[in-house]
Amino acid sequence: MLKYQQIAIEIDKYIEEKKLQQGDKLPVLETLMLQFEVSKSTIIKALDLLEKKGIIFQVRGSGIFVRRHRMTGYISLLANQGFKKDLEDYQITSDIIDFEVRKPTEEAALNLNIKLDNDVYFVKRVRFINGQTLCLEESFYNKSIIPYLNKEIVSESIFKYISEGLGLKVGFSDIYLHVDKLNEEEAKYLALEKGEPKLCVTTVFHLTNGKPFDFSKVTYNYKQSQFFIQANNYFL
Amino acid sequence: MLKYQQIAIEIDKYIEEKKLQQGDKLPVLETLMLQFEVSKSTIIKALDLLEKKGIIFQVRGSGIFVRRHRMTGYISLLANQGFKKDLEDYQITSDIIDFEVRKPTEEAALNLNIKLDNDVYFVKRVRFINGQTLCLEESFYNKSIIPYLNKEIVSESIFKYISEGLGLKVGFSDIYLHVDKLNEEEAKYLALEKGEPKLCVTTVFHLTNGKPFDFSKVTYNYKQSQFFIQANNYFL
Repeated sequence: MLKYQQIAIEIDKYIEEKKLQQGDKLPVLETLMLQFEVSKSTIIKALDLLEKKGIIFQVRGSGIFVRRHRMTGYISLLANQGFKKDLEDYQITSDIIDFEVRKPTEEAALNLNIKLDNDVYFVKRVRFINGQTLCLEESFYNKSIIPYLNKEIVSESIFKYISEGLGLKVGFSDIYLHVDKLNEEEAKYLALEKGEPKLCVTTVFHLTNGKPFDFSKVTYNYKQSQFFIQANNYFL
Repeated sequence: MLKYQQIAIEIDKYIEEKKLQQGDKLPVLETLMLQFEVSKSTIIKALDLLEKKGIIFQVRGSGIFVRRHRMTGYISLLANQGFKKDLEDYQITSDIIDFEVRKPTEEAALNLNIKLDNDVYFVKRVRFINGQTLCLEESFYNKSIIPYLNKEIVSESIFKYISEGLGLKVGFSDIYLHVDKLNEEEAKYLALEKGEPKLCVTTVFHLTNGKPFDFSKVTYNYKQSQFFIQANNYFL
C-alpha cells in the first residue's frame, strides 16, 4: 500500500472516530500535513482518493468537508465486489447449487473476451444475509486468469481469495441493472413467489490491466434490495 | 471550461470518431501532447478526468486504453441528472401532475437540510420515453437556492435550467435504490398494474459547494428500467 493510501485510511478513521457528519469541515491542508506528518503532495493525493470514494468533498477556497449519507439500511451497490466493507456488519452465508469447470455461454464468452471452447469456472450459489435469502448468483470466471477455485473458497468470499490468495488487482467494472418479475426457478431459490419483483445486476469485473475475469448475473430478493451509490459529477 | 476539460472532450470525440473499442490502445502521452498541442500536465489532467468518467483506463507501464461497455439499450444511471448525454438519443417528454410552492415533508426537509417552515418548489411529473411511460417523479427543490421555476421549465429539463439559466454548479449526489411493488396510484400513472415491480430511485443532489438543492423520488416503469454504472475500484 502506498503512503497516500495509508493516510487516506487514517483520515477515514479520523472521520469515523470523531463521528463527523455531512458538511462538517476538516482541518485545513497545513494542519492535516502536521497532524499526519506527511508532505503536501501526499495529503493532496490522499484527499483526492477520499473524494473519489465519496467520503469527502472539496470546495475551492472554502475547505474540505465530510460527505455522509443519511439513510440507514442501504448497502453500497459496490459493496459485495470487494470494493467496500459495508457488508462486514452483516452475516453473509452461501449455499452452492452448482460448481464446475465448463465452457462459457455465448454471452459470458463475449463479455469475458474469450472463445467458446475456453474453460471457465461456473459458480451458482444462493447467498443469505442474516439467514434470509439475499440473492441468486451465477458467475463465470475466466479459468486462464483464475486457475483454481474449490468449494470452500466459493462458499465464502471469492473476491477475497482473488485479491489476497492470487494477488490479483481488481480494477473497474461495468454494472447493468434491470428490474423484472421472478421466474419459477429464481422464486424457488429466493423463497419468494413467481411473478414477484426482482432486481437483476449483471457485472463484468476487470483487473487493473483491463482484462475481464468475472461475468456475473445476480438476482436479488427485492425485500433485501436496498442499495446506495455515491456519485460524483465530473464535468465533461 | 478549463483547458484540460476541453481536451478531455476532444479525446472523447476522437474515440467516438475512430470507433475505438474496449481495450483499444490510445497513443502515448507524448503523441497526445503533440496531437492536441498542450502541455504534459494538461494531458494528464484530461486523462484523469476521462478515467473518472469511465471512458478510458490507464495501466501503469503499459498504456492508455479505451473503456466501452458492450450491452446496448442500457441508460447510464447518472444520465438524467445532467451528468451524461445518453438520453439525448431518446425523446423525453413530461406531463406535469403537480407544481407548487409548499412546505417540505419531514423527509425532504431532513435531506435538504432545511426547516419545516422553509419553502420548496414541489414538482410531480410523469416522464415519457419515446411515448411510453418512463417514470413518476416527485422532486423538492430548496427555494432559497432555486428561487424561480415555472411550468415551461419543469415540463422540460430542470437541470439544464439550473446549470445554464441559474449558473449553478451541480456537484455530487447520493443515490438510493430499492425494488418493490407498485401501489395503485403509481400503477395508474405508469400505465401498469398494481403489484407489478417498480424500481425506486431516491436522490439527494448537491451543488459543488456541498449544499443539497434537490430531493427527488423517482418510480420507474420496470419495463424501461435498464441502467448501467461504470465503477472504478479506488483502493482504500
